Amino acid sequence: MQTILSPVDYIKGILQKDRIILSKAITLIESTRKEDEAIAGEVLQACLQHRKESRRIAITGSPGAGKSTFINAFGKLLIDHEKSLAVLAIDPSSTLSKGSILGDKTRMEDLAGNNKCYIRPSASNNHLGGVGRTTRETILLCEAFGFDYIFVETVGVGQSETLVKNMTDLFMLLLLPNSGDELQGIKRGIMEMADLILINKSDGENTVAAKIAATQVKHSLHLFAASEKEWITQVLNISSLEKTGLDALQKEMEAYFLKMETSGLLQHNRNLQEIFWFEESIVQELHHAFSEDNSIQSVKMQLKDKISNKEITAVNAAKFLVQKFMGK
Amino acid sequence: MQTILSPVDYIKGILQKDRIILSKAITLIESTRKEDEAIAGEVLQACLQHRKESRRIAITGSPGAGKSTFINAFGKLLIDHEKSLAVLAIDPSSTLSKGSILGDKTRMEDLAGNNKCYIRPSASNNHLGGVGRTTRETILLCEAFGFDYIFVETVGVGQSETLVKNMTDLFMLLLLPNSGDELQGIKRGIMEMADLILINKSDGENTVAAKIAATQVKHSLHLFAASEKEWITQVLNISSLEKTGLDALQKEMEAYFLKMETSGLLQHNRNLQEIFWFEESIVQELHHAFSEDNSIQSVKMQLKDKISNKEITAVNAAKFLVQKFMGK
Repeated sequence: MQTILSPVDYIKGILQKDRIILSKAITLIESTRKEDEAIAGEVLQACLQHRKESRRIAITGSPGAGKSTFINAFGKLLIDHEKSLAVLAIDPSSTLSKGSILGDKTRMEDLAGNNKCYIRPSASNNHLGGVGRTTRETILLCEAFGFDYIFVETVGVGQSETLVKNMTDLFMLLLLPNSGDELQGIKRGIMEMADLILINKSDGENTVAAKIAATQVKHSLHLFAASEKEWITQVLNISSLEKTGLDALQKEMEAYFLKMETSGLLQHNRNLQEIFWFEESIVQELHHAFSEDNSIQSVKMQLKDKISNKEITAVNAAKFLVQKFMGK
Repeated sequence: MQTILSPVDYIKGILQKDRIILSKAITLIESTRKEDEAIAGEVLQACLQHRKESRRIAITGSPGAGKSTFINAFGKLLIDHEKSLAVLAIDPSSTLSKGSILGDKTRMEDLAGNNKCYIRPSASNNHLGGVGRTTRETILLCEAFGFDYIFVETVGVGQSETLVKNMTDLFMLLLLPNSGDELQGIKRGIMEMADLILINKSDGENTVAAKIAATQVKHSLHLFAASEKEWITQVLNISSLEKTGLDALQKEMEAYFLKMETSGLLQHNRNLQEIFWFEESIVQELHHAFSEDNSIQSVKMQLKDKISNKEITAVNAAKFLVQKFMGK
């Protein structure tokens, strides 16, 4: 017999660092059932007030850049420094790539069994807005649980990066040690988002190419407008395989957080992010309320017929319908 | 003294093929002024009922693929066949690239002065949804004007292609005659959208590479799921410079339209597109009505403070606000 948990059960479990309850809570917030939604709202509200603020780090890069191996190596380094870590993943891009992200847990062998680390792939939710919301709420649950670091991994195809930028403190971009053409695969917009750019696989026969690539990336960064947060994007050569450059990375990361914390920009940024999500949520809730109004839905059906018969433009029909919904 | 045009002036002018009035009407629908919006609604409604349906063709490709030169060459071929043509452009990607698209009209020298052709760059509207709406409405005006073909050019960076796919009948993708790595610059999703793929610059010393590229593209297309419209994406070698392969392209295009028209899929697809835009417009109108409610806006300000003070989650605040707006 399956026990149904109350909001208090969830909250207590999370605050007492019960990993099974944490997993159940994430499944709860991923649920689209109405009764789950109400419980989720209560749990999240309580978590908001009890959480500590974790360092939230976005990790992105093209397929093949070695994200999983990097997360394994850098995560292990943090754990060796007595830090705890949650690894989340977003992959809303395509049903084709479903399961590819975090799928290969063998690449995270140092983390998978470690009790300081919690790994959770994203739900197979195809709606990008939905994925954004679920991930944000998962971060909140993980903060209430008390992780020092939260890594959010994305596949680097574009859309999801903007979402993730809006829920993290530090954005890391992994590149391969190829120069020139290879960079074209990464969209300029994603380069502009990065706080730290890591040339991964800077080892063995790649060593020279990797140094050239780092120089080229640095040069191309000069073309961008200076970031408002007064942090200059750093480019580092690392090897997740040989575990080189990771100490330097940790040092840069600490420098970044020190600068952001002392200037107050970290809190300022987080506050802006919350307001952004408030605006996003309003749009979603408005649409939700509209969808649930049955009388409006029948008028909508009639308007669809009129649109098909070229009697009214789509925009005029929408205006008419929304005015009716608003009771004007 | 500037004359203010009435809805009837606009409608008459467009139906009488007055290009100056057409340009003014496009400026009108791009306007965000409330008084313009009402007039625009009337004009568009009338245009819907008086238009002929043009062949709407999306043209996309990476920067450097030679879109402008291609449009010039292929547009000229259509004009030589007694067809008329409107060329529209969407470029919402970045302020960096502003003006790059269609900016170089010298590359369209055969079209720029031709009275069978009308060229219009997009408004510098940064809101993607806004660009989509404006372009759709511009298509409607151009159809009322009576163009045989409407080309919609995009820069090929991803987001705008999905919008354009939803307002056109035929999707053409331009690629360069490089093989392998170069293809990575084009997102898989965009390849999947294409009805016709053109390897441009298939001339001179590129000839061999271009044939190899065409073969590679054909092979990679086999990896995709079969399209529901039962049209197999064709790959053609063309040269806009030497004007080769363009007759073959026209032949393929005719084959495509013949298949789509006789099967009824063309109309079916257009109807689905209108319903899609109806749904999009509903979301926009809902948000618009919400933004204009002053009493709600003051509650919203208070909620923002509560969010900043970590008293309420962004999602719970949005739920509360929307319920208040709905008068529940």
